[in-house]
Amino acid sequence: MRRGLFVTFEGSEGCGKSTQIRHLVAWLQQQGHTCLTTREPGGTAAGDQIRHLLQHAPQGHGLVPEAELLLFAASRAQLVREVILPALDANHVVISDRFHDSTTVYQGVARRLPPDRVADINHFAVGGCLPNITFLLDMDAETALARLSKRNGPADRMESEPVAFYQAVRNGYLHAAATEPQRFCILDATRTEDDLALAIQQTLSQKFHGFFTR
Amino acid sequence: MRRGLFVTFEGSEGCGKSTQIRHLVAWLQQQGHTCLTTREPGGTAAGDQIRHLLQHAPQGHGLVPEAELLLFAASRAQLVREVILPALDANHVVISDRFHDSTTVYQGVARRLPPDRVADINHFAVGGCLPNITFLLDMDAETALARLSKRNGPADRMESEPVAFYQAVRNGYLHAAATEPQRFCILDATRTEDDLALAIQQTLSQKFHGFFTR
Repeated sequence: MRRGLFVTFEGSEGCGKSTQIRHLVAWLQQQGHTCLTTREPGGTAAGDQIRHLLQHAPQGHGLVPEAELLLFAASRAQLVREVILPALDANHVVISDRFHDSTTVYQGVARRLPPDRVADINHFAVGGCLPNITFLLDMDAETALARLSKRNGPADRMESEPVAFYQAVRNGYLHAAATEPQRFCILDATRTEDDLALAIQQTLSQKFHGFFTR
Repeated sequence: MRRGLFVTFEGSEGCGKSTQIRHLVAWLQQQGHTCLTTREPGGTAAGDQIRHLLQHAPQGHGLVPEAELLLFAASRAQLVREVILPALDANHVVISDRFHDSTTVYQGVARRLPPDRVADINHFAVGGCLPNITFLLDMDAETALARLSKRNGPADRMESEPVAFYQAVRNGYLHAAATEPQRFCILDATRTEDDLALAIQQTLSQKFHGFFTR
């Protein structure tokens, strides 16, 4: 019986997901909720091995995009059934920094895999375990790049991706949000940290009133 | 440009696939063809790591069936693009001891995953790289079990599966063959070794006349 709350954060690099997750966990814990934050790929023993495989592709031949997608999906399938579903059954709040929407957007944009097939594999991997709500921290490509440059210095790999890539990722997210407006909450990520944290708290309190008052 | 020939062998344990593959390779090499035999999961550096992961599931928590299927698919996606397609482009004969039909049948029967979803993931993994012909070495469950018992001794794990499991696998294969009669060649696996080898050679010579006479 799934009684907990499953919250995911999405958005391009530099949009402030980690910061907002820290704020949200603190707020939820103050109210006595048990929070579980997950990372992908990984989060289980098998998932950690898959993460290692993804990050240290064997010498000579790199992973083909299809194998990469299937490995991400395998890690997620394990995480959902071994960790996330039991936590939700136990009435916990599960907060994930990226989840299946990231796969849809990035594998579609960066690897040019057909979005429909990516979505099919995504849905098989997660089964019925979809987020109750997804916060999309939306930001234009130039601002995201400027933030990353400030954070990482000019030599960072992410920064070397052209603006067009960030723009395509943003468009991919906005398209995903448009197809599921009930699940997505789009927030302007250029608002102040505290302002955003408050907006997230208010959204959750209103949308899941029953969960927060029981 | 795919100019080679892709041949797969399917059937339950004990049906004689390995023996027939040896005969076929010898016959093809006598005629001057270059043969590549593949094993699954594995066959590439990444695939070997995936094989290890599948065979040595981390302590404490085993792999869930969905993750298992996705890992098999990832290994196959890599094998197809890194090894099989280049070999076919080079005019070689690729012979695989089990391929995507095994996944459809075993994951459906043994893990009870929905056959349609398994087929979708299978097709994504292999892309357009489907076998030119698939030899199904068909045998009733009791005979297959008796052969395995003789080969491995009574304590073998495979033998401990009930007859009903072998029957379900056989039915799964026959169903797959019925949906793609152009690709499948069903052979009675209780025929003698030499008789079967000759039937396989004749079938290939007739069906791919152009390949064998050019």
